[in-house]
Amino acid sequence: MRDLSQHPEFLAINTATLRQWPLERIIEACGRRGIRAIAPWHDDVERTGLARTRQLLRDWDVALCGYCRAGLFPVSSEAERAALSEHNRRVLDFARELEAPGVVIVAGGLPSSSRDLAGARAQVRDGVASLLDYAKTLSMPLAIEPLHPMYAADRACINTLEQALDLCDELDPARSGALGVAVDCYHVWWDPKLDAQIARAGRERIFACHLCDWLVPTRDMLNDRGMMGDGVIDIARLRGSIEATGFDGYLEVEIFSSADWWQRDGNEVLDTCMARYRTVV
Amino acid sequence: MRDLSQHPEFLAINTATLRQWPLERIIEACGRRGIRAIAPWHDDVERTGLARTRQLLRDWDVALCGYCRAGLFPVSSEAERAALSEHNRRVLDFARELEAPGVVIVAGGLPSSSRDLAGARAQVRDGVASLLDYAKTLSMPLAIEPLHPMYAADRACINTLEQALDLCDELDPARSGALGVAVDCYHVWWDPKLDAQIARAGRERIFACHLCDWLVPTRDMLNDRGMMGDGVIDIARLRGSIEATGFDGYLEVEIFSSADWWQRDGNEVLDTCMARYRTVV
Repeated sequence: MRDLSQHPEFLAINTATLRQWPLERIIEACGRRGIRAIAPWHDDVERTGLARTRQLLRDWDVALCGYCRAGLFPVSSEAERAALSEHNRRVLDFARELEAPGVVIVAGGLPSSSRDLAGARAQVRDGVASLLDYAKTLSMPLAIEPLHPMYAADRACINTLEQALDLCDELDPARSGALGVAVDCYHVWWDPKLDAQIARAGRERIFACHLCDWLVPTRDMLNDRGMMGDGVIDIARLRGSIEATGFDGYLEVEIFSSADWWQRDGNEVLDTCMARYRTVV
Repeated sequence: MRDLSQHPEFLAINTATLRQWPLERIIEACGRRGIRAIAPWHDDVERTGLARTRQLLRDWDVALCGYCRAGLFPVSSEAERAALSEHNRRVLDFARELEAPGVVIVAGGLPSSSRDLAGARAQVRDGVASLLDYAKTLSMPLAIEPLHPMYAADRACINTLEQALDLCDELDPARSGALGVAVDCYHVWWDPKLDAQIARAGRERIFACHLCDWLVPTRDMLNDRGMMGDGVIDIARLRGSIEATGFDGYLEVEIFSSADWWQRDGNEVLDTCMARYRTVV
């Protein structure tokens, strides 16, 4: 297990952590602090412009550790599916242009007024399979992120690491490096099979490790995630399991926090992330 | 699969569905409607008195389909553990006096300021094992209820049917009838392994089936559960899986709904439960 107090260079920031700042400012602030990588969201990159984003990353010597996100596969009509497919390919194109090491895949939930969870999961399977074909032409790895079961209806019907890995094994049995998972401790910390599934995933399948904390009480199901150390997740233990596979990538802080961290000055947020990275993660 | 429109007699009411009414009134209202069973909460029975509760149940010809609840095993000290053990035994004694067919076990979450989820789960294992010894002397079955993973920190660290059944298999490998599970569709509907685990459980392990619905959006993690038909759970399909095992017991409505159903007149709640039982469940 890496000694983070001696290795500040593995800290990365998902830009959703700093919703109070535009992408330009996040890149600059990370660059000034020596934070070497970010994971931006496609909407923000489109808003900023591809060329300008690339230039900012270059100017501040900040790399991408990932790109958010493609997916949201279950739809109600073929027209929606075609539009979605085009959008997802565009997301991958942007990720390629910015030299992202991979794109995060969030499955999507039930189509509106549907109760067919098995059908939604079949759509996810087919959607990932199809997008994977395109991703291979770009040499762009896809990282399926299982989301907490409380999002099964409205955000993602891939809800456990086991389920995500089953899908990886089905679509990429050779473990080619084209398909893997993003492990976000917020989504998986509760899972009684977590350690076994992390070991099963191994280094070949774990493309990203996301960090935040589970607050008690949690006041909002989406936007009340905690800073590392403020909740109940034994983050260091979880990181130990992940690093025991040989994972040596970035540790990416992603905190959705509408009532707390998004209300603070972005510099305070980044400084706190850096401090907790050293002491809690 | 049973045709509920022809069989009103399998409807049961968990009294948490009617928090606006005292136990006396719930028993009377169920009796008047021909609802044949309820699952009361121990606190309410203590408040009402054991003898009076028994008399009311007799007067209105209402049986118990279960008794809520024992468990909450993880604690921080031996003193707490001793007090808890005494309380749990008392719950079982009351259930025995009221001729309940079983007692629901809710595991409990992390002890305060603990991040040791594995340790909490070990306490649950030991707690169930110990309580099971006592339950056997009363011939009182225990039904472990896995709770949704969003409650892992503060309510129950048994979070999937698979995990609950693993515990059953460990503590009662003979499938003696002393230990099983309560399957609440709210807690398990999202689980990709649900059908397989229901089949694994079989008739010998499924002691109860709880009904409500998952609302989108869910505004409160504890008390925003929906009336059957108002959410996204395919309840009939889930009931089909459960009844395919041979389960022929009560279908128990349990709705925690502080902002909606608890604000309505109890008669409206019961009438709606009866209507949805016929048409949605």
